[in-house]
Amino acid sequence: MTAPLMSTLAQTRSASAALALLSPEVIDATLLKLADALMEETETILAANRSDLKRMEETDPKEDRLKLTQERIADIARDVRTVAALPSPLGLVLEERTLENGLHLEKTSVPLGVIGMIYEARPNVTVDAFTLCFKAGNCCVLKGGSDAQHSNETLVAIIQRVLKEQNLDPAIVALLPPDRSSVETMLTAHGLIDVLIPRGGQSLIDFVRENARIPIIETGAGIVHTYVDESAVTAKARAIIENEKTRRPSVCNAIDTLLIHNNRLDDLAAMLKPLEEAHVELFADEASFAALEGHYDASLLHRAKPEHFGTEFLSLKMSIKTVENLEEALAHIARYSSKHSEAIVAEDQNVCEEFLRRIDAAAVYANASTSFTDGAQFGLGAEIGISTQKLHARGPMGLKELTSCKWIVRGNGHVRD
Amino acid sequence: MTAPLMSTLAQTRSASAALALLSPEVIDATLLKLADALMEETETILAANRSDLKRMEETDPKEDRLKLTQERIADIARDVRTVAALPSPLGLVLEERTLENGLHLEKTSVPLGVIGMIYEARPNVTVDAFTLCFKAGNCCVLKGGSDAQHSNETLVAIIQRVLKEQNLDPAIVALLPPDRSSVETMLTAHGLIDVLIPRGGQSLIDFVRENARIPIIETGAGIVHTYVDESAVTAKARAIIENEKTRRPSVCNAIDTLLIHNNRLDDLAAMLKPLEEAHVELFADEASFAALEGHYDASLLHRAKPEHFGTEFLSLKMSIKTVENLEEALAHIARYSSKHSEAIVAEDQNVCEEFLRRIDAAAVYANASTSFTDGAQFGLGAEIGISTQKLHARGPMGLKELTSCKWIVRGNGHVRD
Repeated sequence: MTAPLMSTLAQTRSASAALALLSPEVIDATLLKLADALMEETETILAANRSDLKRMEETDPKEDRLKLTQERIADIARDVRTVAALPSPLGLVLEERTLENGLHLEKTSVPLGVIGMIYEARPNVTVDAFTLCFKAGNCCVLKGGSDAQHSNETLVAIIQRVLKEQNLDPAIVALLPPDRSSVETMLTAHGLIDVLIPRGGQSLIDFVRENARIPIIETGAGIVHTYVDESAVTAKARAIIENEKTRRPSVCNAIDTLLIHNNRLDDLAAMLKPLEEAHVELFADEASFAALEGHYDASLLHRAKPEHFGTEFLSLKMSIKTVENLEEALAHIARYSSKHSEAIVAEDQNVCEEFLRRIDAAAVYANASTSFTDGAQFGLGAEIGISTQKLHARGPMGLKELTSCKWIVRGNGHVRD
Repeated sequence: MTAPLMSTLAQTRSASAALALLSPEVIDATLLKLADALMEETETILAANRSDLKRMEETDPKEDRLKLTQERIADIARDVRTVAALPSPLGLVLEERTLENGLHLEKTSVPLGVIGMIYEARPNVTVDAFTLCFKAGNCCVLKGGSDAQHSNETLVAIIQRVLKEQNLDPAIVALLPPDRSSVETMLTAHGLIDVLIPRGGQSLIDFVRENARIPIIETGAGIVHTYVDESAVTAKARAIIENEKTRRPSVCNAIDTLLIHNNRLDDLAAMLKPLEEAHVELFADEASFAALEGHYDASLLHRAKPEHFGTEFLSLKMSIKTVENLEEALAHIARYSSKHSEAIVAEDQNVCEEFLRRIDAAAVYANASTSFTDGAQFGLGAEIGISTQKLHARGPMGLKELTSCKWIVRGNGHVRD
């Protein structure tokens, strides 16, 4: 751990004690000032962003995520206002009880403390992460992608200026240099960072899990299946599969593998018509390949290899596996799922309920698109990521998931027998 | 990871899917059978325990924790029945919402999956851990102390026999050999163990934190302070300090450091009278030493060295630090606390509320003994440990803390815009 990084983390840790005592009114007022500042500074932000873009190849798929526009900045500012308007997740009485001896116990929500975020070249995450952490009374230590460094520095400078103008400690947010030594420092910052949230691809998440010496929350990776049962209505299956694959192919709740009941292979081409129109490449097992051959654009139809199952495509690609029954579908999902989102399409309600009961995932759907796995859709108001672990938070994480609790006990000289 | 250990963990992982679907009635009936079996097999258990005791020096402080008696086994069986009678923490609807489009979402509690426990030579923990994990639908992988190996093997054999008699998979519980290779296997069992709970001293917890590649929950270590304010009533302070230090000196919620307001040094000897009678050794800073000299058994009164602050004594020892005001007390606690339990004794309600608000700990007390930090006292029914971390669980962990959640979404062909 290098001395300057260490000193940055120590300053942020020390800012967290005062932040935890701030009133929701001050927090919300600060967020509104930040939204104004982002709008006022749009040109400065765009200039910094242009210098980041200049260093990137135009054909780089990351370009779209890196690029800011006037509209995108306005969207970011609007999201900040939305978070300001949400109810505070702090100071809520989660449990309460009075013992027979009159001792009064109250479990209340408190900030987690300092949250570390490691993410890729998406400057909107910088504002987003600060906003959600701050609303929940947390400091944050950010490490974004090096491609977005100018944009991030400018955004964090604006945040820190607003904090100072509100007489708050600018160390509430820290942006670390986008290099390996920052990551190493964060991974071992026991006592300085309370939880680390990696947001990015599987390799980043694997690296963080293997090397972290502090608590982490794994997010993201979704290997998503949809099982079309014998009892499915073709039109519903068609609409759901289209929505799951083509709405936003690059996100984690998009379908990767379709499981089709072997008695419904005759309807498969009809179900996949919208995918053909959207130029979705298919990797089909033998039975489904035979069913689709001649009924699906041959240039988009391939035979599945083993590596096409258990793969998160994040693009217009999907694998297909034919199953004989629900059991086989459940077994395939249990083997390959990342426990993010899984769906069934079936009219037989017993089969639906069995699927909902037996699938182990953050979100399980009957007759609905996995695209709904999202903090806003789930009523959380905002989302800092989608947890694929079972501890602390599972599925979309909102403000509540950025809090901890403490027991407050009030007595009058009470001692225990 | 050795092949036999790997195969044991894989069997337990595979048992967890069926266990997650078991009805609360079957779980409770199984626990009652286990309580009966423990009573019936008392002699077998005592014989195994005697062979463990034979290998241990009688003067070993661990002897008391290792030793089982007829009464202790009856207590263990009674605790199993208590857990059986608690409401199931599973299948509870934690949140529910219907979107405008009619899509219905339900967040329900589900088991965590497989819980690993690493603990020391306390055979009661073996039954306790299984009982709580099983009640919450979880499998468990146990690694107890080598000193208790015969006792643990006998207890787990009884549990597995009862499981088999109920037509359940005996792999629901696994007892690993008490060696280093078991610990290493558990620490890296990504995908096989969902969370690891170390129960034991600070060195065990530090080792697990440094080496785990899977989620852990830190429990135990309590460096506990009590601040006696200028406004404190002497009698209340005396009763609270006595209770905190002498009720059970070896447990984590016992006081380690007394912080005394410098205007109350004249009352210190009176406050500590019960400690003198209980032969508590004191490590006093200069001002408190001067106040106590001649008023406290000289053989028990020492000058404090730096290492006496921030130390968990787990015995009849306590350090004393004199402070000028609340701020100094808060600063000392922030520096040395393990964020377990902290207390203030004061009649000034503003000072009390300021203390309750500003202390960052699992449990914060005003005018009550920290001895109350306990799952049963907090109304959790039972306790698997006291979490000193902020993620997932904080303070006493009951059945609820052994669950996760999943979102169940029911639609009728719903797709997202």
